[in-house]
Amino acid sequence: MKYNTNPVKGMRDFLPSEARLREHVAAVIAQTYTRHGFARIDTPAVEHIELLQNSEGGENLALIFKILKRGEKLALDTAATNEDDLVDCGLRYDLTLPLARLYANNRAKLPEPFKALQMGTVYRAERPQKGRFRSFTQCDIDIIGEAGAIAELELIHATAEALKALGLTGFTVGVSDRRVLAGLVAALGIDPSLTALIAITVDKADKIGWDAVREELVRQDIAAESAYELIQTLQTLDLTQCEQQGICPEAASGLREVVHAATDLAGGDYTVRFAPTLVRGMGYYTGMVFEITAANLGLSVAGGGRYDGLIGKFCGQSVPAVGFSIGFERIVLLLQEQGFSPPLSTPRIALLYNRTEHNALDVLKAATELRQAGYAVQTIPERTKLGKQLSALEAEGFAGYQQLKHQGRSLLLFQKQ
Amino acid sequence: MKYNTNPVKGMRDFLPSEARLREHVAAVIAQTYTRHGFARIDTPAVEHIELLQNSEGGENLALIFKILKRGEKLALDTAATNEDDLVDCGLRYDLTLPLARLYANNRAKLPEPFKALQMGTVYRAERPQKGRFRSFTQCDIDIIGEAGAIAELELIHATAEALKALGLTGFTVGVSDRRVLAGLVAALGIDPSLTALIAITVDKADKIGWDAVREELVRQDIAAESAYELIQTLQTLDLTQCEQQGICPEAASGLREVVHAATDLAGGDYTVRFAPTLVRGMGYYTGMVFEITAANLGLSVAGGGRYDGLIGKFCGQSVPAVGFSIGFERIVLLLQEQGFSPPLSTPRIALLYNRTEHNALDVLKAATELRQAGYAVQTIPERTKLGKQLSALEAEGFAGYQQLKHQGRSLLLFQKQ
Repeated sequence: MKYNTNPVKGMRDFLPSEARLREHVAAVIAQTYTRHGFARIDTPAVEHIELLQNSEGGENLALIFKILKRGEKLALDTAATNEDDLVDCGLRYDLTLPLARLYANNRAKLPEPFKALQMGTVYRAERPQKGRFRSFTQCDIDIIGEAGAIAELELIHATAEALKALGLTGFTVGVSDRRVLAGLVAALGIDPSLTALIAITVDKADKIGWDAVREELVRQDIAAESAYELIQTLQTLDLTQCEQQGICPEAASGLREVVHAATDLAGGDYTVRFAPTLVRGMGYYTGMVFEITAANLGLSVAGGGRYDGLIGKFCGQSVPAVGFSIGFERIVLLLQEQGFSPPLSTPRIALLYNRTEHNALDVLKAATELRQAGYAVQTIPERTKLGKQLSALEAEGFAGYQQLKHQGRSLLLFQKQ
Repeated sequence: MKYNTNPVKGMRDFLPSEARLREHVAAVIAQTYTRHGFARIDTPAVEHIELLQNSEGGENLALIFKILKRGEKLALDTAATNEDDLVDCGLRYDLTLPLARLYANNRAKLPEPFKALQMGTVYRAERPQKGRFRSFTQCDIDIIGEAGAIAELELIHATAEALKALGLTGFTVGVSDRRVLAGLVAALGIDPSLTALIAITVDKADKIGWDAVREELVRQDIAAESAYELIQTLQTLDLTQCEQQGICPEAASGLREVVHAATDLAGGDYTVRFAPTLVRGMGYYTGMVFEITAANLGLSVAGGGRYDGLIGKFCGQSVPAVGFSIGFERIVLLLQEQGFSPPLSTPRIALLYNRTEHNALDVLKAATELRQAGYAVQTIPERTKLGKQLSALEAEGFAGYQQLKHQGRSLLLFQKQ
């Protein structure tokens, strides 16, 4: 039988150099967040199907990988025409839903406020395209149980520090509030029940442009004039205007405080500004939303916001919550494009031995001594085509060989530069 | 709607203290293996269903979580009676199969020999029971492309070093060879085609006892006398006997070399011995097999062996391979039972502030200064019931508070001991 040895469509294998870069990015992020008081939690990649299907995941709900029931529970004869009867769980499409479930299930045991760090794989059956995958890493921090703006400030500060630690500079933190959009919708006499849909549409402006957004709004039964006015105002709005025109002045003063304090904490390393066109796509946001854009690239590398309603759905009790998600895959891609190579935590040695000259024990004893001296050591048998082998080692960054005498026989050492 | 907030049956959420222990175990293992020249790789948790179902996973094949086809590919009307027509992929049940697929797909790009480290979640729809889960971490090292016993020695040495680094002491490495069992089967006149089945049965001795093994062998059409003789010989066999009686003398001399060299490398920290009753359950082992047993517990904490045939199935070319898997979940459990708490990589401070006295910016500036001084800092608002809050902090290990003056106001600092 001939097997397909490619990974499943839209998913990836990571060979050593890529795996090492991903580990580096994960470690730097985790270290920064730990220093900011966030504690790591983990949830299974598999979730109850009812939970996934009844969640506020918007367009992600159509992209769930569903898992077939097993054994007796799978009644193919009687339940064959209904997909839902065939499945009992599915792969998570984000980390927010599992967090809400975990929090509801363990609330009494968790500190208040609860500051959680999650890094894990999520799955979406999207049409694969460049830079978009069906299995990818998400990296979220969330603060549950804090209604004050200190929560937003901590998320923004910690995430900006993580990006700085990864070598990103000159980025911009855009901040807005869902209630500004809602206030504007109300001020323009648009049906308030359309606000969530409008947010999803406005969120696409980066991808499809403002003309297309206006056309889509009109198709959503918003008067052409109102759609025009809404976009025009969003593009030019400032906080003073919000306050003077009564477009949710409460949100405006909160935004003013956060922009001021976050700018102070930034110390000139990055910019924080009110971004009125920022709304974020997810339906569950209830207050402030934020996004970090990489300089020159115009690419969002992190996004989040306040979602005070979601946890309550599981707890049966209102609990404030706010989260920030770093675009892990995008940052890995950025670093790869920059040719970034993670620093070696331990100096490395390739130890070449000759199968006929050296016995295994002698080689491993020599390696042990080098490890005790602080090196990471890889033992490699000499190949017949030694020149080709040395070129391959050089390409890996090994150079400057020296001879090591062990039990009277010489081994070749190459140190990674 | 009322949601079930428990994790999916047989799977687990990890709250901060457990997640931190698991991270510690993973980090220590990864660090040790990196020093021994193993390079991290990663594969998706989702694999092609044909690959999973045609693999040599033995009893695991009945435990695969299968993933429903999506969109047009899912033809419920016509394909309703056959489970296989409904699914196109599934969750991996181990890390060996994905490794073989990755190797076959990337062979030209990989060093030779290829020394791989994998740590990842695998899924088995087993009946959940104490210490057995449907989603759990596996941690494997493999050497592909090395036929010599130096591969076995490196795996044994590196794994033993990882266990030592985790604080385990006085464990025993048992080593045997599948060919010894095969030789014994041949010497006793038993049908050689039964060897794989006999290995699976003998492997159960720890769980079901030798009497039950004998009964099962008899049910497998092995003469009662042969079954008795086989078990009797297995229990008392030594390497000299193997050599003298011609029970695969080649395997015996290889075992002698490995036991001798591994004992030398152990330097008295652990024991290495020939374990004739050790056969390991998986069908794909072709040569040496090994297992590490924790002292006093009689529990296997790592196991592996040579599987020279498996990679060839994917490559169309014979490639020698040998692997060792640490029982990650068992070690975490062991450390938990010992009350082990991982060392803090950074000293921690809980910074208590009063919502009415302090504004967010001042609190975060004070936290920033402490972080710059090298602490991990968690900001916590004072609660009305301060006494209860302080007790909770103490229970977490925070103690010895001091006052910090910031902007003329005092914050309370608690350092984790």
